[in-house]
Amino acid sequence: MNLHDYLQSRRALVDRMLDATLPPANTPPAVIHEAMRYAVLGGGKRIRPIVAIAAAEACGADVEPLLVPISALELIHSYSLVHDDLPALDNDDLRRGRKTTHVVFGEAMGILTGDALLTEAFAWLAKPIAGVDAQRQVRAISEVATAIDSTGMIGGQVADIVAERSQWRAGVPAPASDGGGDGGAPLPDDRDALIRELHFIHRNKTGKLLTASVVLGGILAGGTEEQLAALRRYGDALGLAFQIVDDLLDIEESSAMLGKTAGKDVAQGKLTFPALLGAEAARAEVARLLDVAVENADMISGPVNTLTPIARYICERRS
Amino acid sequence: MNLHDYLQSRRALVDRMLDATLPPANTPPAVIHEAMRYAVLGGGKRIRPIVAIAAAEACGADVEPLLVPISALELIHSYSLVHDDLPALDNDDLRRGRKTTHVVFGEAMGILTGDALLTEAFAWLAKPIAGVDAQRQVRAISEVATAIDSTGMIGGQVADIVAERSQWRAGVPAPASDGGGDGGAPLPDDRDALIRELHFIHRNKTGKLLTASVVLGGILAGGTEEQLAALRRYGDALGLAFQIVDDLLDIEESSAMLGKTAGKDVAQGKLTFPALLGAEAARAEVARLLDVAVENADMISGPVNTLTPIARYICERRS
Repeated sequence: MNLHDYLQSRRALVDRMLDATLPPANTPPAVIHEAMRYAVLGGGKRIRPIVAIAAAEACGADVEPLLVPISALELIHSYSLVHDDLPALDNDDLRRGRKTTHVVFGEAMGILTGDALLTEAFAWLAKPIAGVDAQRQVRAISEVATAIDSTGMIGGQVADIVAERSQWRAGVPAPASDGGGDGGAPLPDDRDALIRELHFIHRNKTGKLLTASVVLGGILAGGTEEQLAALRRYGDALGLAFQIVDDLLDIEESSAMLGKTAGKDVAQGKLTFPALLGAEAARAEVARLLDVAVENADMISGPVNTLTPIARYICERRS
Repeated sequence: MNLHDYLQSRRALVDRMLDATLPPANTPPAVIHEAMRYAVLGGGKRIRPIVAIAAAEACGADVEPLLVPISALELIHSYSLVHDDLPALDNDDLRRGRKTTHVVFGEAMGILTGDALLTEAFAWLAKPIAGVDAQRQVRAISEVATAIDSTGMIGGQVADIVAERSQWRAGVPAPASDGGGDGGAPLPDDRDALIRELHFIHRNKTGKLLTASVVLGGILAGGTEEQLAALRRYGDALGLAFQIVDDLLDIEESSAMLGKTAGKDVAQGKLTFPALLGAEAARAEVARLLDVAVENADMISGPVNTLTPIARYICERRS
């Protein structure tokens, strides 16, 4: 099977499981179940469940019995998008070409839908799984919970907000305070400190859930400690590479489409690796991270190994 | 030990564990950890952890090793308060005489603090627990997650909002739509349907987490299936009684303080059991629920049983 077919087929597995396992839209109270389904079933690449599936398969597992806890990763990703889009946060009206959840269902339901998706994820992670011992399951739940807590994904989002509301963007005035205490002190203005801060934000905001997804697949598949350690290094490298590629594509797409040399992120004064390091050095970093990912994927010597093609795909994608 | 001393000592155990286990306020990013501690450590009766402790002790357990997962119940309760207080929901500026979390830290941090507390709760529930087998631990996590999901606590909150925004309050005009789709169709106006709806809201919004707290204590303590079933009935009765007593106190306090016969809830057009059934019948229902709770508490024949005095205390409290 080529990678395209693999991604398609695994995405279809996840989409089917999400649709079958989310409460039906008419479950009372209906509005929250409509909103949950709207937020989750509106498309998306399903990257996190797919890397979890690839990791589980690399460790030799049949993934069919693991699809419910693996699909829970997509509930978590969806919850983070629904809450990030809220007026008090990024205030986005559109996502993937559709109205965001709070625009369709109201702000109160936006908040509660995110809460419900996060909670549902843990309910799914704690459902009985055929062939997985309970100790591994508790470890899997802990792996996911700590990846997305206040020192993980939420911490990354907080650091991002604090950074945006402070003076770290040279030449871009800080937005007016919203009256709350969540603006921060000015961030350090030397370049190394900015790079460290940017690493903190990316590692936490997007990296840790991606790593936890890969590791979750390995844990549920009964992977050895060596395999789990290799999966963790693979996930860390992939998560950072994914983010840098996003930033690079933003510059290149905007340049091509708008005839400008600076992309949307740069125009908005958003700090990115290409902005800090230059595009050339950023591309070199992606190449280095791909090597790390491939090296670790090779250490998982299972019967199937799509981890390497997935890493190449993510690092070399053009959109 | 009399009940007052028991409640004081168990509350102190929980307060100490919360303070010791929440990330220190200077953990980066500091603002979210300050906000989490602000939301959780500002007082509160700690009812949910205390009933969990009482249930575990009734089943014969030493609660010391169980205090982290049991304290997670308070994180969940705190998360629900932080989100309910947000401007898009109840828009409350004060709670227990202090400014609410979003007033102090801003709306964005209010949302993220609730998210962080909910996530932290599952991280705590999934930490290794000395002497508890992993299968029981998974069951405990599942018990809590399903109690607070979109068919549990969140579902109750949604139903409450839909009810408030619809026409169920005779004589009270429905508030203007906020532009979202979360207003609902008018609710049925016959009394039996209203009573069923009110049961749905209370059972879900406050009842299920209280029941799950009691059952969690029993699960972690290694209680038998018979004990767990009795604890569930005890929790269900206690949860509903707790709510009716709250509503009765609201009427009585307001009458005494304001010289009116109708309390704040009635003045606001809020539907309550006393409003629907009359105060006399509501008091009789509390007495009946107390009997159910005591009967089931008596079935847990452990060495210590404070479940009965706790039920009496909750049903007979004057504030």
